[in-house]
Amino acid sequence: MEKRTDINTLGEFGLIEHLTKDVTTQHANTLLGIGDDAAVIEAGDKAMLISTDLLVEGIHFDLMYTPLKHLGYKAVVVNVSDIYAMNGVAEQITVSLAISNRFSVEALEELYKGIKLACKMYNVDLVGGDTTASPQGLTISITATGRAKKEDIVYRSGAKAGDIMCITGDLGAAYLGLQLLEREKEVYLAAPTAQPDLEEKKYLIERQLKPEAARDAIAYFKKKNIKPTSMIDISDGLASEVFHICKASKVGAFVEEAKIPIHPEAEEMALKFSLDPTMCALNGGEDYELLFTIDEKDLQEIRYMPSVYIIGEITDAKDGIKLHTSGGNIHDLKAQGWKHFDEEE
Amino acid sequence: MEKRTDINTLGEFGLIEHLTKDVTTQHANTLLGIGDDAAVIEAGDKAMLISTDLLVEGIHFDLMYTPLKHLGYKAVVVNVSDIYAMNGVAEQITVSLAISNRFSVEALEELYKGIKLACKMYNVDLVGGDTTASPQGLTISITATGRAKKEDIVYRSGAKAGDIMCITGDLGAAYLGLQLLEREKEVYLAAPTAQPDLEEKKYLIERQLKPEAARDAIAYFKKKNIKPTSMIDISDGLASEVFHICKASKVGAFVEEAKIPIHPEAEEMALKFSLDPTMCALNGGEDYELLFTIDEKDLQEIRYMPSVYIIGEITDAKDGIKLHTSGGNIHDLKAQGWKHFDEEE
Repeated sequence: MEKRTDINTLGEFGLIEHLTKDVTTQHANTLLGIGDDAAVIEAGDKAMLISTDLLVEGIHFDLMYTPLKHLGYKAVVVNVSDIYAMNGVAEQITVSLAISNRFSVEALEELYKGIKLACKMYNVDLVGGDTTASPQGLTISITATGRAKKEDIVYRSGAKAGDIMCITGDLGAAYLGLQLLEREKEVYLAAPTAQPDLEEKKYLIERQLKPEAARDAIAYFKKKNIKPTSMIDISDGLASEVFHICKASKVGAFVEEAKIPIHPEAEEMALKFSLDPTMCALNGGEDYELLFTIDEKDLQEIRYMPSVYIIGEITDAKDGIKLHTSGGNIHDLKAQGWKHFDEEE
Repeated sequence: MEKRTDINTLGEFGLIEHLTKDVTTQHANTLLGIGDDAAVIEAGDKAMLISTDLLVEGIHFDLMYTPLKHLGYKAVVVNVSDIYAMNGVAEQITVSLAISNRFSVEALEELYKGIKLACKMYNVDLVGGDTTASPQGLTISITATGRAKKEDIVYRSGAKAGDIMCITGDLGAAYLGLQLLEREKEVYLAAPTAQPDLEEKKYLIERQLKPEAARDAIAYFKKKNIKPTSMIDISDGLASEVFHICKASKVGAFVEEAKIPIHPEAEEMALKFSLDPTMCALNGGEDYELLFTIDEKDLQEIRYMPSVYIIGEITDAKDGIKLHTSGGNIHDLKAQGWKHFDEEE
């Protein structure tokens, strides 16, 4: 019998690594291939950045509680966020859709309203795509291109011991928004006439359904002439991203639990769900804030950056990746993520 | 009740046009947005070309008779073909996959073998992508980037009356290969022990399962210093592509039925299936040859081009889009395509 290895044994990142481990690049124009938030391609005085994301119904979104307009908006934002994570300016996107005939023209108009709104907000041009039938559900594939001067591009690999670790906004709220929406869905399915009361949870819901990308941070870096030493966007939870930076930069790090910014609404909701707010921030994902590191010399300028949080420090690789808990203990940081191919990821 | 317009009332192209009719571009770097085989973006001395295609299991491929390695190869080829259709050189691709847990690591290794082989054959770098779970089936989204000098880029919109219409290879075989595979599938499902005999139909099967992109044509144009006046790749059948060129160029055209190249195996198989071979060429699709037009002055050079076929001429818009039949009649050319969202497209 043929050998059959379940894809879950490798996890998402392990699977990609396994399938692409022997991939090399041939073109001198390919400045960076697989392994960062975006690929980097030679393009005259600046370099072009390319990043792509796939959103699949039933995996990344549930149309029972996701308005199509918000979905279109979010699909653009998550891609634009990858360009910002390279310290670039997003310029173009292509949008491909696979749609079952369950979707009406009006439904797709709603989706496109969100796509176009995000294009306007983030100043990106919709330049192409592909629209095709699907036997089931909706799949959205977006590719974003952006631009940066070669010397301004920030990679995951530039962090060094002593660098300060920062994030651009609070964490965990998007995950808790999702838990809330999932709970309301259960309530609705059990009693379809019940009216959900989400008015007071607006922040959490918005962080889940209509996230924004950290464009202001990139503008601030430019204005203040600061170049982070490394950067990544927080799509899979803080812990996973700290691991990516440490792996690419061959360094260790510690995160101060007490410094991880968690919105009061997220804190409250976590406790209601009997979840540890810190775990929601570390492993929840979908916050689309940026995690970046800076040289100590830039600390003064970063302190004045609007809504920035200093959460830890880069250390030598031999010191490992640690969480300094609020209780005064030191634990190994663990990236649990939601990486199973039979679950939400 | 909410208005609900079935997407099939618009068809694929109508739907895209409807959803994107108000899309404009803001960046000076965006040289061309929606509407050709690829978008064109400013990139120094050359321009960058970007094209994207989505392949969905159950719509674009059937894994009962499509080896995963061939599928990976074809997925790259169809994208690279779009770059050639702009007279560009393909350089990079990103590959995104949505996979259900029905697929094993070994199955994905096969798919990647084909992707990597095509990358090698067409000299393109695999530079990124996204891998995610899917509740059902396999979806492949590939974005290809390429490059061309701005003045060398060939658009759909440059054809003018008097230009000669040419194609780079024979048509209809991929469609007939598909009919053959579908028939064998039916036979197999009815009697799983029956052994299919496809040895003598190798050409048709290969055109369907492992098409090649017309790279040699692009190399020939460069070598001979010929620039076609318009070009498009034949993914949806000759008729549909002639319409695209005529619409973009605001011209008419006639196609000589007797000049449409049809491989003898395709001819024979069409008759066995009681299909009109010309209709298979006009509406079958997936041939991935290039349809291009040239100025009359370049005719002499084009005659020496390997495997080129001159099939008709561009006329004034008022003369319409016509088929000169082998029987001596003139009909309106019709693009039936396979454009329904509830069918193969």
